Amino acid sequence: MVDIRCYLQERKALVDEGLARFLPEEENYPAAIFQAMRYSVFAGGKRVRPILAIAAAEAVGRTADDVLPLACALECIHTYSLIHDDLPALDNDDYRRGRLTNHKVFGEANAILAGDALLTFAFELMGDARHWKQCVPERLVQVMHEVAYAVGTFGMIGGQVVDLQMEGQDIELPALQYIHAHKTGALIRTSVRSGAILGGGSPAEVEALTDYGTHIGLAFQIMDDILDVRGDEQLMGKALRKDDARRKATYPRLVGLAESEVRAQAAVAAGIAALDLLGERGAVLRDLAQFIIARES
Amino acid sequence: MVDIRCYLQERKALVDEGLARFLPEEENYPAAIFQAMRYSVFAGGKRVRPILAIAAAEAVGRTADDVLPLACALECIHTYSLIHDDLPALDNDDYRRGRLTNHKVFGEANAILAGDALLTFAFELMGDARHWKQCVPERLVQVMHEVAYAVGTFGMIGGQVVDLQMEGQDIELPALQYIHAHKTGALIRTSVRSGAILGGGSPAEVEALTDYGTHIGLAFQIMDDILDVRGDEQLMGKALRKDDARRKATYPRLVGLAESEVRAQAAVAAGIAALDLLGERGAVLRDLAQFIIARES
Repeated sequence: MVDIRCYLQERKALVDEGLARFLPEEENYPAAIFQAMRYSVFAGGKRVRPILAIAAAEAVGRTADDVLPLACALECIHTYSLIHDDLPALDNDDYRRGRLTNHKVFGEANAILAGDALLTFAFELMGDARHWKQCVPERLVQVMHEVAYAVGTFGMIGGQVVDLQMEGQDIELPALQYIHAHKTGALIRTSVRSGAILGGGSPAEVEALTDYGTHIGLAFQIMDDILDVRGDEQLMGKALRKDDARRKATYPRLVGLAESEVRAQAAVAAGIAALDLLGERGAVLRDLAQFIIARES
Repeated sequence: MVDIRCYLQERKALVDEGLARFLPEEENYPAAIFQAMRYSVFAGGKRVRPILAIAAAEAVGRTADDVLPLACALECIHTYSLIHDDLPALDNDDYRRGRLTNHKVFGEANAILAGDALLTFAFELMGDARHWKQCVPERLVQVMHEVAYAVGTFGMIGGQVVDLQMEGQDIELPALQYIHAHKTGALIRTSVRSGAILGGGSPAEVEALTDYGTHIGLAFQIMDDILDVRGDEQLMGKALRKDDARRKATYPRLVGLAESEVRAQAAVAAGIAALDLLGERGAVLRDLAQFIIARES
C-alpha cells in the first residue's frame, strides 16, 4: 500500500494544482461567487473522482496532463453536488469535512448559485480548447454528453431525488441499491469511463474500465456507509451516525455490518476481475480498488 | 408585423415540439423530477432564446431543424435560471407567468434539483450525437464551451449575484447595466451567436450576429423593465410593479420612462445596423428586433 499512497498523493497534487489554475481567481467581480466556489472546492476533498479519471487514461496509455481539465471538471461537479446536498431544503448540514458548509458561510442564495456555477464551469472547462493540447473533438463531445447524462436525472440527480423521498421511511435493499448506484455510483463510473474514452482506449478497454467503475463505485459507497457506523468522528470530519439518527438507509442498517463488509469486498473483487484485459497496465487501478476498502476516512 | 408574428408562431411550435420530444417523459422514475422539469419548461414561455438561435442559423443558410437541439438546450437553461431565481432564498416568488412557481408546487428541494437537472440536461442534449444529423464536432465543442461561459460566473450567474447584492440599495446606472448585460443579456447574446456558429457562419457573420445579440439583449431587458412599469398585470401574468415595491433597480427608475424608451429604440437600431453585412438574409432578424420593442408582454 506504500506505492498507492504515493500515487494518490502525487495525482492529488496535480489535481489540486489544476483546480487552482483553472478556477477563476477570487479577485474577480463579483468576488462572493468566486470565493464561495473556491471555498468548497478547496475544503479538503480526496479527489477520488479526478484521480480515477487520470488512472483510467494512464491505463490506456495517456498521461495525467492529457486529461487534467476533464479530471478537474469532475471534481467541480462533485463539489456542486455536495453544496446543493447540504442546503437547508435538502440535507440541512452545517458541517462538511470539519468545516462549515457553503451556505453557512456565504448564505443560502450564494450557495445555490455557487453550486450552479461549479456545474456550469465543469462544462466550460471541458469544452475549453485552450486547455487541450491534443484531443479528438468527437471524443470530447461524447464525454461531455456522457458526463451530463451520468449526473442528470437518470444518474446522480435521480439518486438524490429518491434519497430525499425515502428519508424517514423503511426502505428495502433494491431502493438502497438504486440510490447508491445513482447518487454516488454514476459519477464514479463516468469518471473512470470518460478518462478511458478521452484517453483513446479501445472499445473493449472502455467497456472493461466501465465495469470496473461500476463495481468500485458500489464498493466506495458501501465503505462510506460502514465508515459512517464505525468510523472515528475526527478522522471523517463530519457528524457521524447522523444517517442512523435520521433513519437514512445504509448497507449496515439493511444487511448488517459484517455482510456489508462482505459485499464491499465482493464489489472490489469484481472490479479487479474486470481489469483482466488490461494486464499489467491495470496495476494501479487494482491497488486503487483495494485502497477503497482499506481506507479509514 | 404580420409576417414576423407568423414566423414567431411557427418557430415556437417547432421548439415546443422539440422540447416535448427531447425532454424525458414524466413516466420515468423518479417521476417527481421529470414532472417538475416539464412543469416549468411548459409554463408558457415565448421561446425567445431558441427562436433567436434558429433565426441566426437560418440567416447563415441553415434550417431550424439543423440547430433544434441547441435551441431547446438554451430554453432549458433559461428555465433553470427562472426556477432558481424564484426560490425562497433568492427572489422568493410565488407566481411566474400566472402559474405557481416550481417550488410552490413541487417543494424547495425538488425545485433546486429540477433547476440543476435542466441545466445538466442542456449539455446532455447539446452533446447527444443521436440528435445531430450533420454537425462539425469542433463547432459543437466551441458552442458548448461558449454557452457554459455565457451562463456562468462571468455571465448570467454573475449578473444574478450582483442583482441580489444590490437589492434594496440605491444603485447607479453602471451597476444596472452590468446586471442587465450579464443576468439576461449574456444568454440572449450567446443564443444568437451559438446559432450562427453551429450554422456554419463565416467569422465576419458570427461577429455581426454577436453584435446584434448584444444590442437586442439590452433592448429586450429595457423593454422588460418598461413593461413592468406600464404593463398590464393580466397580460404579463405575474405580479407587476414588484420591482418598484422591492426598490429593485430598473431603467425607468434610474433614467425615467421616456429616456428608457429612447434607449431601447437606440439598442434596436444598433442591433439592426449590425446586420448590414447579411443583406437580405438579415430580414427576419431585423423584424425580430423591431418586435422586441413593439411587444406588450
